[in-house]
Amino acid sequence: MSTCTLRVLATLKELEVPYEITPPSDFSEIKTPEYLATKHPFGKIPVLFEDGFKVYESRAIVRYLVNKYQGTKNSTVLIPSDVQKAALVEQFISVETSYYDGPVSKLVAQEVFTKFHGKTPDPEIVKEAREEIGKVLDIYEKLLEGKDYLTGEFSLADISHYPYTYYSFTSGHGDLWENRPNVARWWKNISERIAWKNTIAELNQK
Amino acid sequence: MSTCTLRVLATLKELEVPYEITPPSDFSEIKTPEYLATKHPFGKIPVLFEDGFKVYESRAIVRYLVNKYQGTKNSTVLIPSDVQKAALVEQFISVETSYYDGPVSKLVAQEVFTKFHGKTPDPEIVKEAREEIGKVLDIYEKLLEGKDYLTGEFSLADISHYPYTYYSFTSGHGDLWENRPNVARWWKNISERIAWKNTIAELNQK
Ligand SMILES: N[C@@H](CCC(=O)N[C@@H](CS)C(=O)NCC(=O)O)C(=O)O
Ligand SMILES: N[C@@H](CCC(=O)N[C@@H](CS)C(=O)NCC(=O)O)C(=O)O
Repeated sequence: MSTCTLRVLATLKELEVPYEITPPSDFSEIKTPEYLATKHPFGKIPVLFEDGFKVYESRAIVRYLVNKYQGTKNSTVLIPSDVQKAALVEQFISVETSYYDGPVSKLVAQEVFTKFHGKTPDPEIVKEAREEIGKVLDIYEKLLEGKDYLTGEFSLADISHYPYTYYSFTSGHGDLWENRPNVARWWKNISERIAWKNTIAELNQK
Repeated sequence: MSTCTLRVLATLKELEVPYEITPPSDFSEIKTPEYLATKHPFGKIPVLFEDGFKVYESRAIVRYLVNKYQGTKNSTVLIPSDVQKAALVEQFISVETSYYDGPVSKLVAQEVFTKFHGKTPDPEIVKEAREEIGKVLDIYEKLLEGKDYLTGEFSLADISHYPYTYYSFTSGHGDLWENRPNVARWWKNISERIAWKNTIAELNQK
């Protein structure tokens, strides 16, 4: 259920890079002195290991995968080589981190993770999160006018929106996206990609 | 006083890229329909304009500047070309965004921005922020063991730590950094760079 890991998984599948996942045995494992010393000093997942090289933080991992593997296994471009086009990918990655992630993860924390831990979501927080998401999506609706993807072409910026949006849909809040025609078209375009469908299939298989 | 703009300014100076700053006339200007439509759709600063090209979000702007100008005006390297070294720069940029920015900006919001607006900082929040910063810096203390900079060499990851750390020092909380030998050495190394000194000089001149 780790949203950060889903972001990495989607990127691996888009680039067709083979991988192996080793989930921690439980939540406490990632806070042990050994884990902190050898894996992630802040006690988080995911961490990537590759032939003795280690890198943590999902947003660093996905850029590393793109830098290393883009163009080697297939022709999918997630960060264009043109500096201005690359800048717009980074712009929308930062938009996701700065304005989208906050309200959408607030909703998902209630509707998915609170429920997962056997507790009841707070309807006030859910209502507040929905209002905040609505405001952000109104801006996305304008940004996506006449565009199939955030920068015009599919990119790492679209991928960074997958995890929390997916959980918003599975928890019954997809209407916020579907009621806005440009946002709805965008989500349809990205959520129907084979790599994402395979990511979800793998997720639901566990 | 915009910390996001300071991050861009420090990068421009490190790369010796000439620029011109046009501050908004006041806080309300960045929320006007015209500003939202033509500058930043979320009503924020900074925005970079260059020969008809526009990009917003400080972390996208600095990567654009590095991609475009690194190696052209001087030999300063902010993102190495080696993919593994570049990944570690991204790792520490994400560490700053994910674990450092939160507590340090909480302190600065109280001690600098609340005061700026003529209000009194809340001592409880200041105390809480200091404790949270202490925990994060204890981890930095280990990460910086035997290292002059976060990745070993000066990089964009160090730059991203400048703005809030600077304001923590100017508001009298430098002890948190100075009491930890490795953290203290790191801050000395980066805060004594000419480009940063010039950034501060320009800031204080306004
Ligand atoms: N900024 C980090 C965030 C890592 C993070 O918060 N991971 C979550 C899972 S999505 C986690 O490890 N949660 C367990 C915990 O914090 O104890 C990243 O993008 O990798
Ligand atoms: N994620 C954005 C944040 C932009 C931001 O919050 N800018 C602040 C100044 S540091 C701002 O415009 N504040 C005024 C406001 O929010 O009304 C970035 O890094 O550029």
